[in-house]
Amino acid sequence: MASDIEIARKAGIKPISEIAENLQIPFDKLELYGKYKAKLPLDLIDSEKAREGKLVLVSAISPTPAGEGKTTISIGLSEGLNRIGKQTTVVLREPSLGPVFGIKGGATGGGYSQVIPMEDINLHFTGDFAAIEKANNLLAALIDNNIQNNGRSLNIDPRTVHWKRVMDMNDRSLRNIIVGLGGTTSGIPRETGFNITAASEIMAILCLAEDFHDLKERIGNIFVGYTFDKKPVFARDLNAQGAMAALLKEAIKPNLVQTLESNPAIIHGGPFANIAQGTNSVLATKMGLSLSDYVVTEAGFGFDLGAEKFLDIKCVSADLKPQAAVLVATVRALKYHGEVPVPDLNNPNVEAVKQGIENLEKHVENMRKFNVCPVVAINRFVSDTDEEIAVVKEKCKELGVKVAVADVWAKGGEGAEELAHLVAEAAESCTSEMTPLYDWNWSVEKKIETIAKEIYGAKAIDYTAQAKKDLKVVEELGLGNKAVCIAKTQKSLSDNPKLLGRPENFVVTVREIEIAAGAGFIVPITGNIMRMPGLPGTPAAENIDIDDDGVISGLF
Amino acid sequence: MASDIEIARKAGIKPISEIAENLQIPFDKLELYGKYKAKLPLDLIDSEKAREGKLVLVSAISPTPAGEGKTTISIGLSEGLNRIGKQTTVVLREPSLGPVFGIKGGATGGGYSQVIPMEDINLHFTGDFAAIEKANNLLAALIDNNIQNNGRSLNIDPRTVHWKRVMDMNDRSLRNIIVGLGGTTSGIPRETGFNITAASEIMAILCLAEDFHDLKERIGNIFVGYTFDKKPVFARDLNAQGAMAALLKEAIKPNLVQTLESNPAIIHGGPFANIAQGTNSVLATKMGLSLSDYVVTEAGFGFDLGAEKFLDIKCVSADLKPQAAVLVATVRALKYHGEVPVPDLNNPNVEAVKQGIENLEKHVENMRKFNVCPVVAINRFVSDTDEEIAVVKEKCKELGVKVAVADVWAKGGEGAEELAHLVAEAAESCTSEMTPLYDWNWSVEKKIETIAKEIYGAKAIDYTAQAKKDLKVVEELGLGNKAVCIAKTQKSLSDNPKLLGRPENFVVTVREIEIAAGAGFIVPITGNIMRMPGLPGTPAAENIDIDDDGVISGLF
Repeated sequence: MASDIEIARKAGIKPISEIAENLQIPFDKLELYGKYKAKLPLDLIDSEKAREGKLVLVSAISPTPAGEGKTTISIGLSEGLNRIGKQTTVVLREPSLGPVFGIKGGATGGGYSQVIPMEDINLHFTGDFAAIEKANNLLAALIDNNIQNNGRSLNIDPRTVHWKRVMDMNDRSLRNIIVGLGGTTSGIPRETGFNITAASEIMAILCLAEDFHDLKERIGNIFVGYTFDKKPVFARDLNAQGAMAALLKEAIKPNLVQTLESNPAIIHGGPFANIAQGTNSVLATKMGLSLSDYVVTEAGFGFDLGAEKFLDIKCVSADLKPQAAVLVATVRALKYHGEVPVPDLNNPNVEAVKQGIENLEKHVENMRKFNVCPVVAINRFVSDTDEEIAVVKEKCKELGVKVAVADVWAKGGEGAEELAHLVAEAAESCTSEMTPLYDWNWSVEKKIETIAKEIYGAKAIDYTAQAKKDLKVVEELGLGNKAVCIAKTQKSLSDNPKLLGRPENFVVTVREIEIAAGAGFIVPITGNIMRMPGLPGTPAAENIDIDDDGVISGLF
Repeated sequence: MASDIEIARKAGIKPISEIAENLQIPFDKLELYGKYKAKLPLDLIDSEKAREGKLVLVSAISPTPAGEGKTTISIGLSEGLNRIGKQTTVVLREPSLGPVFGIKGGATGGGYSQVIPMEDINLHFTGDFAAIEKANNLLAALIDNNIQNNGRSLNIDPRTVHWKRVMDMNDRSLRNIIVGLGGTTSGIPRETGFNITAASEIMAILCLAEDFHDLKERIGNIFVGYTFDKKPVFARDLNAQGAMAALLKEAIKPNLVQTLESNPAIIHGGPFANIAQGTNSVLATKMGLSLSDYVVTEAGFGFDLGAEKFLDIKCVSADLKPQAAVLVATVRALKYHGEVPVPDLNNPNVEAVKQGIENLEKHVENMRKFNVCPVVAINRFVSDTDEEIAVVKEKCKELGVKVAVADVWAKGGEGAEELAHLVAEAAESCTSEMTPLYDWNWSVEKKIETIAKEIYGAKAIDYTAQAKKDLKVVEELGLGNKAVCIAKTQKSLSDNPKLLGRPENFVVTVREIEIAAGAGFIVPITGNIMRMPGLPGTPAAENIDIDDDGVISGLF
């Protein structure tokens, strides 16, 4: 079997101008980045089409080490829809560069369901992450400069600054650092750290912004810390928003690339799905809907995390309404939820599938709470037996939910035609309208409780003393009416990563609440959320190479 | 008078494909970055043409707060040469982003001698700096990861690691930091810091590399530090060079933009002129020479710094030979060298010009030591009197050197026609061949002494105890036959920034010697070299803005 990069390289990649032509984008609107990538100017967005187009959300059961293949299914489904005559664009998140050098080699789908050029998309792409990094770090420099500079100081208490710098690199040594050493001319020493760029609030902001005006306003709203006399300080107090937004002048524009089957793909933005909304930009989604009849998009981690945020934060904020939602499951992952250890996942085990399927069941129930029409996609692996697949199909029948087996990794769009038919049927016959789970105007506690009980299945919520203090701060800052973006482990429906399947009778503990006032949400933290990964013992970087002709190898 | 950004915006900017067409670049070779920028693939370089073309180096007298305008003259001269029928490309360094938010607003020339689109060039441009930053910081992450990871450890002694992270931001708080705090899973605590990206050895390497092969070899040669048992560790020991070079896949390609008068400009790379070679990339220079008859290029700071390195490091390394060299001077700067304080520089003062002109005299002498044909360009300011200019002309006549007044800021290429004629005359009648000042095979001490005595005018060299130790290390590592890149203040020909004019009888003190084994030179440090600037009391960032249509203001 060829590796992903080999398959990608053998594909007959077309000039991006051809892909754009198929979308009826005039050539002079295209902002080319080399021959195979382009940025799309925002005036290509047609608000009416964006409201009316068919939006299909791809999510998954709770992630396991077995892998679910959400991105691969999204790409394959998009190919499948195009094959059955539905003009479709797949709209995805941009991969983060840091992890490329760590364990995995890339994040652009796999096998015969990929977006290309994969080397470019996985490395710097069109520079969006670099721009976000720079905007984030400019604010950090302005904060420390203001602290250093007594003359025009805002009197910021350095101990209260929670704004961190970011770098798109797996670099654990930057998690906790002390800056400002070296004497009076080199800053005021203080504790801080770096997050990976995808965890930046700027990323969340960029992905929710509707235009430059909104972008600047959101940036200005970023909460930085307090003055020594306990007054809140925002980015606008540092006059930071203009320069920061200027740094995002190009990054705000969605990027057009193509799939292996020469269909359009828009790839833009990549916020985390725990501390942020976990989905591509509002502008990318609207761009896709403006240019094609169907948009297939995905949200990070399981339905309880990325999809809940997609629906309650992104859709509410941007007035988007998906007509169908796909829940990706694999037999291997269901066996893992049925307590089969990783080394045994390739062995047939019908009983384990039966046990683990309760995880799928709960996610399907959750989908219905939003009034979206669910379709289950079984992402086929070679080791799956017919009996195991029959168990999943049987359960779906029992739940009254459409189900299809998809084999997109080995077959591309051809492997997703059945799924595509079901999704098109669901989207076109969908009479219900998506309804968010909560009203942003509810109290913070009610919003948290609703998500935790309805979606996670918790029996109660507990707040630590710190979280209670933080709740008061949220109210003091007038942010009680913002969306709630719960940071929780993706490994379980509960806040305990060890509880697989469908946990019950658990209490969710809110440890603290962070504020993302610019993004427009608050972040109740229910566990240890890793915001700066490290490199493994043998980093993937060691095997990445470029030859004398500039051809890259070692991305996979 | 319109501001730079206003002039730039009013200019009838042409699609970059038109500029490329004039250079006979086939459209399909062009890697567009939007409509007005393009990367040029390396196979457009014609080694023979690169050796034979007319290369004109623009340098300056010792910089003063009065400003010399080297970039502006380079652009204006290039316009002038094109006007008099010499097909010319101006080849410049890329501006660093950090300082844009500090005091100055941009670095793309000024008035009617600019390269455009100036907002893009001054902000992220085509992502080269971001890529260099990432490659640099990947090595840092791999180093700290190796230190953390005892299993496959190289046994690196963290106290000996001198490789720093970089960020293209004026951020003084990052100069001296402690990383790796937070317990056993978050690295080994150690002292380190960030430099600004232009100071990265990767920048120096990229600007000297001839191709991907050479790039990778140079990166592999980077000296990282020592093991606990005192063995040297290089980047290749971490298998870092492949992934780092892969990150530079696009950054290695020169960027094509245009001047205000629609002439071609290649802008690529931007290393410091003290700790590095201070000039654009070898590949950019060769690209320019391959595509046009003349190339005008510049080197940072005064002739003693950037130009000396241009000639002794870049030209020797890449087998380039400039046919003419322009020394930019201003009456204001000469008055400053004649001890006039800044507030009085606009007042006529013939005597001060006479006194300060000894600085120009020394630089002209230095130019002749390299056997390049010198031309003096007086960059005209409104405050200059005819009498003051006459003093400069008189001195040039006495020195037997061609001189022209250029008024490129107000008049663009029209203001540089006289200069262009002189430069073309010099380049075309030049019978001598540029000879470097020293042979790389000489001993380190002899090389340092030759530069310091011949170029700076020092009477002797002193080495601190540290520098003597460092000399031994250089020899132990087998780097004695590398070029010497002296880091010295740009403000004086001596190593004391306060000695203006033409200092004599001074001793140059080498305080320490750094190793840039990848770049292929060693760096004797003779003063405090700032590698991470700070922001001023009122950062320029506060006035930078972007409007609802995405139009940027506040860059000037």
